[in-house]
Amino acid sequence: MPDDFEAMWSDLTPVGRSTTSGGYFRQPFLSAERELAAWFVEQCAARGLRVETDGFGNTVGWWDVPAPVVEEVAQQPSRNPRSPTAGAVLTGSHLDSVLDGGAYDGPLGVVSALAAVDLLRERGVVPSRPLGVGVFAEEEGSRFGLACLGSRLATGVLAWEDARTLTDRSGMALADVVPGGSSSLLADVGTFVELHVEQGRDLVDRDAAVGVASEIWPHGRYRVDVTGAANHAGTTRMEDRADPMLTFAMTALAANKQARLSGQRATFGRVSVEPNGTNAVPSRVTAWLDARASSDDALAALVEVVTRQASERAARDGTAVAVTAESVSASVAFDPALAAALADPRGWPVIPTQAGHDAGILQAAGIPTAMLFVRNPTGVSHSPLETAALADCLLGVAALADVLEGLL
Amino acid sequence: MPDDFEAMWSDLTPVGRSTTSGGYFRQPFLSAERELAAWFVEQCAARGLRVETDGFGNTVGWWDVPAPVVEEVAQQPSRNPRSPTAGAVLTGSHLDSVLDGGAYDGPLGVVSALAAVDLLRERGVVPSRPLGVGVFAEEEGSRFGLACLGSRLATGVLAWEDARTLTDRSGMALADVVPGGSSSLLADVGTFVELHVEQGRDLVDRDAAVGVASEIWPHGRYRVDVTGAANHAGTTRMEDRADPMLTFAMTALAANKQARLSGQRATFGRVSVEPNGTNAVPSRVTAWLDARASSDDALAALVEVVTRQASERAARDGTAVAVTAESVSASVAFDPALAAALADPRGWPVIPTQAGHDAGILQAAGIPTAMLFVRNPTGVSHSPLETAALADCLLGVAALADVLEGLL
Repeated sequence: MPDDFEAMWSDLTPVGRSTTSGGYFRQPFLSAERELAAWFVEQCAARGLRVETDGFGNTVGWWDVPAPVVEEVAQQPSRNPRSPTAGAVLTGSHLDSVLDGGAYDGPLGVVSALAAVDLLRERGVVPSRPLGVGVFAEEEGSRFGLACLGSRLATGVLAWEDARTLTDRSGMALADVVPGGSSSLLADVGTFVELHVEQGRDLVDRDAAVGVASEIWPHGRYRVDVTGAANHAGTTRMEDRADPMLTFAMTALAANKQARLSGQRATFGRVSVEPNGTNAVPSRVTAWLDARASSDDALAALVEVVTRQASERAARDGTAVAVTAESVSASVAFDPALAAALADPRGWPVIPTQAGHDAGILQAAGIPTAMLFVRNPTGVSHSPLETAALADCLLGVAALADVLEGLL
Repeated sequence: MPDDFEAMWSDLTPVGRSTTSGGYFRQPFLSAERELAAWFVEQCAARGLRVETDGFGNTVGWWDVPAPVVEEVAQQPSRNPRSPTAGAVLTGSHLDSVLDGGAYDGPLGVVSALAAVDLLRERGVVPSRPLGVGVFAEEEGSRFGLACLGSRLATGVLAWEDARTLTDRSGMALADVVPGGSSSLLADVGTFVELHVEQGRDLVDRDAAVGVASEIWPHGRYRVDVTGAANHAGTTRMEDRADPMLTFAMTALAANKQARLSGQRATFGRVSVEPNGTNAVPSRVTAWLDARASSDDALAALVEVVTRQASERAARDGTAVAVTAESVSASVAFDPALAAALADPRGWPVIPTQAGHDAGILQAAGIPTAMLFVRNPTGVSHSPLETAALADCLLGVAALADVLEGLL
C-alpha cells in the first residue's frame, strides 16, 4: 500500500527546511534536493512505476500499458502501430525550490501526481496509453540561473552545448554535475498536465479551489552591470565619485514605478556588489531584473524604458551600465481546446499566470499542455508563507485524476 | 644589511594581490595578511629589533635604549626613574587591506618606519627613549566589521569581553582567531607617529609631497536593516508587495543627496540581500551606511535625516527599517603642538582627514599623536588605483626619520 497524500507530504516537510526562516533551500543537485530525488524513486518503486532518467537530471516514473492492452490498442487504426507508447500522457512538476522558498511550489505537483495514480488504480482504470509522473530538474533557476533548465534541455529548446558551461555562484559548471547528452524522455509524450500551487490571489478572489491556466505571460531575466570606480568612502569628495550603487538604486526605483504604471511586473531580487566593503565606494554593482508583461511587446517596452532610465542616471553618476538578457520566454498560450474541455464542464475558472513553468516549455515545444492551479490562501509564493489547505490539495488530486482518466 | 625601501616594497607587492583586478585582499588573520605578519617579524629580526606581541594580533619591534644610555638617562631628574622605557616613541601602521584595496594604505607606513630606523642608524642616532615600529591588526574592519580593532583593544578603548564575540561573514568569532586577554604593548608609549598614503587630493592640490594631519572627521558605520515580505516576482501584483529593495534604494539615494548638499560624506558600499534570488521579491535587505562629517553634531544630523527619509519610504513600501550604529568615532584633533612643531619649520601643509586611523584611536586614548601623509597622485584609495611616486615615498621616509629623531 503506497503512502497516501498526507504521508508523502509529511515525508517532504523537513527536507531542506531552514530552522530560522522556515523556508526551503532545495537547490538542484545539492543534498536536500538529491534527498527528494531519491525519495521520488522510492515512491515510484512502491507503485511499480518504471523509472527512466536522462543525462540532465530529469526523471519519469512510467505506468506502462499492460501487454494485453498493448496488443488490443495496436489493432485500432487510429493509433500509431509503430510505437505502443505514442501519445503518452505525462504529469508532474519539480522538487527544487528558490532560495528560502515555500513547500508547495513544485512538490505539490509531484505528490499530487503520485496520489492521482493511486486514485486511478482505486477506480480500476487500466491505461491504454503510458502515464508518466515526471520530475524536471532546476525549474527555479536558483543555481545555474536559467529557469526550467531541465525541461528546456529535455525538449531540445536548449542545446546541451549551450548549457554545459552555465555556472553556479561557486563557479561549478553544469557539466560538472550532470553527464549531459540528449534526452528521449519526452519522445512519445502526447500531452502534459502540470498541477501547481497558485502563486497569486486570483482563485481566492474567485472563491475557487481549482483553476485552469490560459497562458503564461512573457517574462525574462536581465543582468544589469553597473561599473564605477572603487574609492575610499571617507576621503573621496562626493563630487569626485563614480558610485554604481546610485545608478542601481535609481534603476530599481524606476523599474518598480514603470511596472506599476503599466500594470506589468518588475523586480530586483538579486544583487552582487564588488568589493562589498563598508568603507569603500563600490567598483561594480550587478543586479538582476525579473520582468514580466501581458504581451511580448509590452515586455520589450518595459525593459527598454528601464534600460534607458538606467543609462540616463549612469551618465549623471559617471558610471557605465550594460543590460544583458540572460533568458527571455515569449508568451505561451496553453492548448485552448484542452483548457476548455477541463474547465467548462466543471465550472473551473481559466486564468493567466505570470510565473514560468515547465508546462510552458513543453507547450512551446509543441506538446499540448494544461495546467491546474490549487488555491493558495495567502497568495504568497517563493516564501515560507506559501501554503494550501489540505482539503484544497485533495480536491486538486481528484481533479488531476479526473483529467488524466479522461486523457487515458 | 637590511632590505632598503625598494626591496621591502618589492617583497610585499605580490602578496594577496588579485590577478584579475590587481587589488589586494589582505583580510586579517588569513593567509595573505599572515604572510605579511611573518615578513614583518623577519624584517625586525634583520634589524635587531626586539619583537613584542599581544593577544589581539598587534606587534611592535622595539629598538631598545642601549644599557649605557639607560644609566645615563636615569640620572636626569626630568625622566621617570622607575621605568627606563617611559615616554617611548612608536611609529608604524597596519598591513591589512580592505577587500580589493590598494598597495599603500597601511604597508607604506610600516615599510617607511623600518626604512626610517635604518636612516636614523646611518645618521648615528642613538635613542635615549625606546623606538617601536608597530603593526596594528584589522585596521580596516574588513573582516570583523569594526575598524581599528587592534588599536582599540591595545588602548583599552574596546574591552576584550565586548570584542571576542565579533564574527566574520563566515560566522567565525574573533575569539576563535586570537587568544585575547590584555595588552601592555602601549604601556610606556609617550608619542605615536603614523605615516600614511594620502587618500584624497589635498596634497596634489597644494603641490606638496608630505603633509601633517590636523584632525580626523567624526565617522560611523550604521547597519540599515529593511524587512519586507518574500514573494514571487511574477505572480505578486506590484500593489501587493512589501519590497525592501525599494526602501533601500531610496535610502541610498537620499544619503548621497544629503551628504552632497551638506558637504559631508555618505556611502553605501556593502549590501546583503535575502534570499537574493532573481525571481523572488526579497524578504530583507541589509546595507551599511558609512557616514562622515566635519563635526560630531553634523554627523548626528546627517544620520538622523537619512534615518527619517528611510522610515518615510518604508511606510510607503510596507516595510520596516531599523538603523543600528555599529561603531561611531567622535572627531579627533591630533596634538596641535606636535603638528605645528612638525609642519611649521618645514612648510608642510596641515590638513584634516575623513579617514579613520589607528593614530586617531591612540590620540583619543590620550597618547600625543601625529600623522604624516604622503601625496597620492590619483587621490584614489581603497582601490587598485591607489598609488604614490617612489620619490615621494622616499621623501616621506626622510620626513619620518626627521620627526622621530626630534622626538628621540
